[in-house]
Amino acid sequence: MTEKNIQVRLAHRPEGEVRTSDFNIAEAPLPEIGDGQLLVRNHYLSLDPYMRGRMSAAKSYAQSVNIGDVMVGGTVGRVVASRHTGFREGDHVVGYLGWQLYGVSDGTALMRVDEPDIPLTAYLGVMGMPGATAYVGLMDIGQPKQGETVVVSAASGAVGSVVGQIAKIKGCRSVGIAGGPEKCAYVTDELGFDACIDYKRGRLAEDLAAAVPNGIDIYFENVGGRILDTVLARMNPFGRIPLCGLISQYNAIEPYGVKNFGSLLINRVKLQGFIVSDHLARWPDAFNDIGQWIRQGRIKYRESIVQGIENAPAAFIGLLAGKNFGKQLVKLI
Amino acid sequence: MTEKNIQVRLAHRPEGEVRTSDFNIAEAPLPEIGDGQLLVRNHYLSLDPYMRGRMSAAKSYAQSVNIGDVMVGGTVGRVVASRHTGFREGDHVVGYLGWQLYGVSDGTALMRVDEPDIPLTAYLGVMGMPGATAYVGLMDIGQPKQGETVVVSAASGAVGSVVGQIAKIKGCRSVGIAGGPEKCAYVTDELGFDACIDYKRGRLAEDLAAAVPNGIDIYFENVGGRILDTVLARMNPFGRIPLCGLISQYNAIEPYGVKNFGSLLINRVKLQGFIVSDHLARWPDAFNDIGQWIRQGRIKYRESIVQGIENAPAAFIGLLAGKNFGKQLVKLI
Repeated sequence: MTEKNIQVRLAHRPEGEVRTSDFNIAEAPLPEIGDGQLLVRNHYLSLDPYMRGRMSAAKSYAQSVNIGDVMVGGTVGRVVASRHTGFREGDHVVGYLGWQLYGVSDGTALMRVDEPDIPLTAYLGVMGMPGATAYVGLMDIGQPKQGETVVVSAASGAVGSVVGQIAKIKGCRSVGIAGGPEKCAYVTDELGFDACIDYKRGRLAEDLAAAVPNGIDIYFENVGGRILDTVLARMNPFGRIPLCGLISQYNAIEPYGVKNFGSLLINRVKLQGFIVSDHLARWPDAFNDIGQWIRQGRIKYRESIVQGIENAPAAFIGLLAGKNFGKQLVKLI
Repeated sequence: MTEKNIQVRLAHRPEGEVRTSDFNIAEAPLPEIGDGQLLVRNHYLSLDPYMRGRMSAAKSYAQSVNIGDVMVGGTVGRVVASRHTGFREGDHVVGYLGWQLYGVSDGTALMRVDEPDIPLTAYLGVMGMPGATAYVGLMDIGQPKQGETVVVSAASGAVGSVVGQIAKIKGCRSVGIAGGPEKCAYVTDELGFDACIDYKRGRLAEDLAAAVPNGIDIYFENVGGRILDTVLARMNPFGRIPLCGLISQYNAIEPYGVKNFGSLLINRVKLQGFIVSDHLARWPDAFNDIGQWIRQGRIKYRESIVQGIENAPAAFIGLLAGKNFGKQLVKLI
């Protein structure tokens, strides 16, 4: 066990592209715990696109991280000391203890995880926030019906991969958009999507048209920008767009101007922005269904794991550029 | 009674701005009616922004008008001959008999109107399609709650004026956007909106900010373009946007690029494009409520009437440029 804590703190607010120098890696003393608290040794840190928003001072759906504060983030780990009646030393827990080796919790938003057939890291992916995001967005906003066509961007990512697999389970045609032939092969061959479009091939409009002969009923949006515009042109009447993310825009100085906005009117599309933490009541349903689908082999997932907290900033920058392949994690032990 | 019919037909599909030369005004023989049909002498023709879409070949929510065909449009008039069991000579009817003096109907989508205290022209406005549009969009998609702030663009128009007045009736703060001080004065002084922003004043962002100190909960969108972008920046969390029209874009060769799309995500906005003809089941509720509000003096309206079918094309072009003031009608008798 490390004697000291190591933390990644926000050093500067990025303008445009995030740089490693926007972070500051520092040692800190092991925190003391008081009554009702517990100390967790984090084993894995989750890296997620939403963190880019927290680095900015601009208005967003959640509080910005202050300069000098530890970066926020989901973690799984093991309780190493407890003065909390709900947790014991040795318990495995998932929570939001941030980019650091050790975190103190009073139990808020901390959950003990103990299903023997689910790996610990899954609680940061398919059985965690990204899985719940895919489930809530697709099921509650998208409301897929048998035979419909579902398109999802960032299809090989933590959220997109689950969206497309649930769409298949619900009897839909499932079409992914991803960057590069390797990711696309994974999406179709491993995850079982009906088609995947490599947007880096430079033929997005043509390839999309060929992949959705009956148009698009649901577009689960993770990326925004030019891909969004291209998809909008193919929406069917009464289509739905769960708007989950706009990762192509997070580093942008000048936002992309969406030209095919008129398709939302002409096709009477329902578009809804959502944040999964607004839908906590649905998480148990999500994990119940997803857990079952994992055990049945109907939902697969892939992880991209970097070793060492000192590599978290570079891995996060890579995530924003789509360099990860599947759920991006940092191994902290 | 005119012996001949006069029709306005589509001569060319406009590219960009509509011109009077895109229409062709022609005489036609008075149509004969068969069994189950009736002949109507139209008294008023309604001019509405949706007609611009019907002039284009591009995919829209309704069939394009073919070159050489009579332009589509809502009309009120009087039955002058009937071989239909449901209508008698002398009945006043509202329907979609197009840009012409006489129309034949088999009764489809034709409704007898006979409320003595509602003027005939109202059935093309507040008690017709525009009124139902305002009602369905605001009530069913917007779902206004007491104390919320509702913003509506094209606020002095046939739809916008009703939206803002219903919002007031529902206990909301009602803010209009309109072009010019005269329209704005009408919106606040006559219609009772809490504020109206003259977008032609060149201070849209500042004036909007001042008019919505608590942000915007519902934006009823009729215009699109720069106004949409400015409003998006002020949306509140869990805001709703009934997307009714994008009149600023109908003549555009290059569509405007919407830059503040990210606000839909950050604020978890629900945006829904809608066409009132998809919601026919709600029309009786709309007219029941609106009729009552008119009688109570709680909904007012204004009409802009041009005389003569030969002036319909120019009036329509003026409508697209916002030159009308209130519901645009053409008097045909």
